[in-house]
Amino acid sequence: MAHTYSIGIDIGGTNTDMGLVRDDGTIIARSNIPTNAYIELQPYIRDMMACIEKMMKDMEVSEIEGIGIGAPNGNFYTGCVDNAPNLTIKGVLNFEKEIHQYMNVPVVLSNDANAAAYGEMVYGGAKGLRHFIMFTLGTGVGSGIVIDGKLIHGSTGAAGELGHSILIPNGRKCSCGRYGCLETYTSARGIVQTYFELKGTPISSDIDSKAIGDLANQGDPIALKTWEVVADQLGMAMANSVNFSAPEAIFLMGGPTKVGEPLLKPLQKAFEKYLLNIFAGSCTIRMSQLKANEVAILGAAALIKMKI
Amino acid sequence: MAHTYSIGIDIGGTNTDMGLVRDDGTIIARSNIPTNAYIELQPYIRDMMACIEKMMKDMEVSEIEGIGIGAPNGNFYTGCVDNAPNLTIKGVLNFEKEIHQYMNVPVVLSNDANAAAYGEMVYGGAKGLRHFIMFTLGTGVGSGIVIDGKLIHGSTGAAGELGHSILIPNGRKCSCGRYGCLETYTSARGIVQTYFELKGTPISSDIDSKAIGDLANQGDPIALKTWEVVADQLGMAMANSVNFSAPEAIFLMGGPTKVGEPLLKPLQKAFEKYLLNIFAGSCTIRMSQLKANEVAILGAAALIKMKI
Repeated sequence: MAHTYSIGIDIGGTNTDMGLVRDDGTIIARSNIPTNAYIELQPYIRDMMACIEKMMKDMEVSEIEGIGIGAPNGNFYTGCVDNAPNLTIKGVLNFEKEIHQYMNVPVVLSNDANAAAYGEMVYGGAKGLRHFIMFTLGTGVGSGIVIDGKLIHGSTGAAGELGHSILIPNGRKCSCGRYGCLETYTSARGIVQTYFELKGTPISSDIDSKAIGDLANQGDPIALKTWEVVADQLGMAMANSVNFSAPEAIFLMGGPTKVGEPLLKPLQKAFEKYLLNIFAGSCTIRMSQLKANEVAILGAAALIKMKI
Repeated sequence: MAHTYSIGIDIGGTNTDMGLVRDDGTIIARSNIPTNAYIELQPYIRDMMACIEKMMKDMEVSEIEGIGIGAPNGNFYTGCVDNAPNLTIKGVLNFEKEIHQYMNVPVVLSNDANAAAYGEMVYGGAKGLRHFIMFTLGTGVGSGIVIDGKLIHGSTGAAGELGHSILIPNGRKCSCGRYGCLETYTSARGIVQTYFELKGTPISSDIDSKAIGDLANQGDPIALKTWEVVADQLGMAMANSVNFSAPEAIFLMGGPTKVGEPLLKPLQKAFEKYLLNIFAGSCTIRMSQLKANEVAILGAAALIKMKI
């Protein structure tokens, strides 16, 4: 049977990664351009489209189902990126319209965590699931929510910001200006802060969340305690999210999750402790089944499945 | 044009209220039986059906679109009430099956807060809205969530339990066995507890949340402060819920909301304070537009619209 193809684009502040994705979830070609070399949308799109055309030509793919884009502040409803603070190209950027100057295919935008959730459903461990939530841990904490097989965008297109739900009232100051957001505790930076709080010394840039993971796996008691605290906080946030949509599974991905056992074992315990009894046994915590260096492109490419 | 009709049933621990509802949201006949007089399902359903048949006969309605039931632990997917702790009839009760012994019409069950949300959409202030959340304050705190015009039931049928999301870690002990649930702060009992905590005296049964409302409207400073605290807690929970589904509106109903200004003014302020900036201006707090003594029956009757 003939394969179909789509393009997935992951727009980061520094790099823009593009991939030509076969319907079985294989990325058959990749390309990239430096996002921060551009201050205007038109030349950026022009160079992006040149990469896409080259990938298609090289791989002898004459037709694609569409272009999916995961981008900070990517808006599903408008096809625009709305004033993303970490992009050098400023303003409301109409990607869909600009891309249509070159190629008349469906264009779908969403934020990166939403794309990751959808990618997990189309190509990863959430195949066949109808209700799940994805938490992504990294610089920030993102989330994507699938209910009844549909990615939730809400009335504005920006639904699924569980990283900014307040976990601890009057807690740590968040980059969003408020206090106590989940992100301030379970992002890479939040984890580092907890480690130094437990250690009782000022935060040092010598150590990052990966190093705290390594220390924990070597048996360092402060590092192990750090992951227990993080697990308790994340487990509470996950249990709270179950009250909303009663998912079958909660997926987890991102750099800090690579620590493994020191996080995952206490996380399971915390989740069960905080879960409302009527949901006991109905929802499991699972790790993303997509490769870290593929999830952004696969997630973006998967978004196209919503339009076709 | 000819009207259509449906039956709405509100099952409480003490009473079962039934109504014959016209498609314009008018309850044209009502009836009730004492829930706690029954310990078996069959006689309860038999008497319920007798009431329904009498209402239809009295009003000369020969046909109904279906029977909607709002019940504690009412499960949308199975048509059963699952082990509701406050009912004298114990076990998993298959309402749909039993009712079909008498009448071959669609039967839909859901919990009362879900029914209230759906009733608001079909007959009340949420007509035409696609994304909203209903919070019901009373003995407990319930919620119903509508996304893209659909009531969210999740994978188990029990989605929408925001009253049991943990608002304050290690906070007040909740009837569910956990600590710090929203319900422990903004239910009628939670409000009374806050009042006595602020007053610095033991909780007395002489005063209920209604009395604290009256005191606040008379200018009593401790009562006013109580509603400010409750508003802050509820506003935070509402703002957190916006992160999930980016609704256009959050509705509020139930006894304690009748206090008016002393709750609603600080609630608006707290909601804005806790709302993530990307949602600013996208979501408004509104009061339910259904009458307190009609919402349960109208909500239950509205559920039928999901099956036809």
